[in-house]
Amino acid sequence: MKRAILTIVAVLLAGVATLSAQQNLWQKEPLKSPEINADNSVTIRLYAPNAESVTLVGDFVDNASMRCNAEGVWEYTSEPLASELYCYWFNVDGIDHVNDPANSYVMRDVGSQMNYFIIPGERGDLYAAQNVPHGTMAKVWAKVSDGRERRMTIYTPAGYEGGKEKYPVLYLLHGMGGDEDAWSATGRVAEIMDNLIAAGKAEAMIVVMTNGCTQHVAAPGYSHEGMWRPYMSGSMDGSFEAMFPSIVEWVDDHYRTKAKKSQRAIAGLSMGGFHAMQISKEYPTMFDYVGLYSAAIFRGKEGIETYANLEAKLDRQFSEGVKLYWIAIGKDDFLYKENVRYRELLDSEGHPYTYRESEDGHIWRNWRIYLSEYSQLLF
Amino acid sequence: MKRAILTIVAVLLAGVATLSAQQNLWQKEPLKSPEINADNSVTIRLYAPNAESVTLVGDFVDNASMRCNAEGVWEYTSEPLASELYCYWFNVDGIDHVNDPANSYVMRDVGSQMNYFIIPGERGDLYAAQNVPHGTMAKVWAKVSDGRERRMTIYTPAGYEGGKEKYPVLYLLHGMGGDEDAWSATGRVAEIMDNLIAAGKAEAMIVVMTNGCTQHVAAPGYSHEGMWRPYMSGSMDGSFEAMFPSIVEWVDDHYRTKAKKSQRAIAGLSMGGFHAMQISKEYPTMFDYVGLYSAAIFRGKEGIETYANLEAKLDRQFSEGVKLYWIAIGKDDFLYKENVRYRELLDSEGHPYTYRESEDGHIWRNWRIYLSEYSQLLF
Repeated sequence: MKRAILTIVAVLLAGVATLSAQQNLWQKEPLKSPEINADNSVTIRLYAPNAESVTLVGDFVDNASMRCNAEGVWEYTSEPLASELYCYWFNVDGIDHVNDPANSYVMRDVGSQMNYFIIPGERGDLYAAQNVPHGTMAKVWAKVSDGRERRMTIYTPAGYEGGKEKYPVLYLLHGMGGDEDAWSATGRVAEIMDNLIAAGKAEAMIVVMTNGCTQHVAAPGYSHEGMWRPYMSGSMDGSFEAMFPSIVEWVDDHYRTKAKKSQRAIAGLSMGGFHAMQISKEYPTMFDYVGLYSAAIFRGKEGIETYANLEAKLDRQFSEGVKLYWIAIGKDDFLYKENVRYRELLDSEGHPYTYRESEDGHIWRNWRIYLSEYSQLLF
Repeated sequence: MKRAILTIVAVLLAGVATLSAQQNLWQKEPLKSPEINADNSVTIRLYAPNAESVTLVGDFVDNASMRCNAEGVWEYTSEPLASELYCYWFNVDGIDHVNDPANSYVMRDVGSQMNYFIIPGERGDLYAAQNVPHGTMAKVWAKVSDGRERRMTIYTPAGYEGGKEKYPVLYLLHGMGGDEDAWSATGRVAEIMDNLIAAGKAEAMIVVMTNGCTQHVAAPGYSHEGMWRPYMSGSMDGSFEAMFPSIVEWVDDHYRTKAKKSQRAIAGLSMGGFHAMQISKEYPTMFDYVGLYSAAIFRGKEGIETYANLEAKLDRQFSEGVKLYWIAIGKDDFLYKENVRYRELLDSEGHPYTYRESEDGHIWRNWRIYLSEYSQLLF
């Protein structure tokens, strides 16, 4: 804390022009980490002069041992990487989660902070802010049918503010342990939608990111329920499905929406895919587009009416008409077999769907890919 | 990464009811850190079995050495603390900034993540979300007079959405190295305003949090300029002041504002206090309320016309009328003498102001206090 203050003093006294020189008076030259090299490999560094072992944990590396140089800097250089957004942290001498102090770019996944970087190129550029018109990302509170104010994140596309046009709506649901901040932060929704809409690849749409854990009204830090450690909480007891019509009604009341089935989509990841499946079949005149991303299809609590009579309710939903029923999962996902079983059910009933199988498992990388593809198929 | 996936598997397979039991299969019982004790002391813990030394750095402690127990858990218990929001991190074996992996509550200050906790009570409750009507916090983009789209954070009070009323506006400016996310995250603006407005202590108002570093159009992660390490950047060259009328115009065009001097306030911290002083005197018919929080009064680049003829411009501003000119600073602030000098200048010219001197120095704790007090004096 004191050093931070000293740095401010130094900078303010010196003025901005001499920032680098002054910084050297007070602190070491900051390490460059991550450094993206010319061949799209990445070098990660950590100054830890007294550590005995440092392991790099990430979605581009298989728990790599880092090596320490004479200056106490631990270093790891990856193979050349494909264009993507990648996450990592360190394990240092048994501390199982140390973030990179040189990298200010951080995403929260449930209860943990992950550092990230983007390798430019086709996919990475989609997840990075570009010089295109930007939509608005708002944290709003809606009183819903359980009588509580609940927090949601709502993306409105460029042109919405100050305009008069009405827009279609995508409802986008998070997984277990997630909340209304998951898709906007870790899912990079603003960047993906801004970029796809600007490129003419997706329709301009409103995206509503709800909080599907009915135990809490908001993400940690924004709820009056005090401070808690986020965990793998979920609502698979029918309570979220029950309040969903009041969410749609609130959105239609407060935003310029095209308030009809042909202009509404729903999608979700993991538990959110379960919710999207349940909600779309419970309210068969509500959504023309359904997206199940790595969906936890058969996980509802037993003895709940919402989850009973699945086949009859699916029949009703598909007889009402579904323009797109999109199912995506990774080859290594632990829910893979569950999704095979669900597709067999749909097949046996003659319900049409589109199937997208990707690499990898139950990870955010896939969910960003699925959103990028699914959103281009809507409206 | 792999363990995170295993945890998800375990939880999904087991269902939510047996979460705790299942977690024990896959990971140690999570440490409780921070733990707020009955006497309002706090215990901070870190599992670091192989570390040789762990220091706790925070705004409630003077670099405390932690002690390791037989299970490899380093622990520190503070004195009983006054009600407040407190921040901390660790220094572990020479790694100068390790966040608490057991605490998901994190704020970014410039380039660093700080863990935080809140001690309940009068002040802490003001910074925590309460069960009161909530305003909206939106990240919006505005095309301003430099021709670029720039990102801003805008708070609209409960009742704004779906209402018709017009509201006064407070423009709230960050310090060096900050951005449009600083006040909304570290400044706890939504919580402070929701709570004060609900208690009838502050008028319902719109709060506009700009990005005053004209080098960048947005906070790190949200700008098309790529990824960079946030540093103590600033704009004290007249460029931010020059674009400010176009920001006010954009806000008046896009929000239901009471668009006149008596319904506009401006305030800022450190460099933002400098900006608030400069902008309010450059446009003397724009603001009736001015707040300088730990202001870096005399730091403008030399040879800039905006910063010339200070005394004559202040005369003009005060002859137009200022309802409240509020100057606040901490006793230990390195800008204290500079603020004495500025008050001497105002005194010598007979310009009235209100002065608030607090404990401590150039820290966020003071800026949250100043906002809480200043906002109650507006409109």
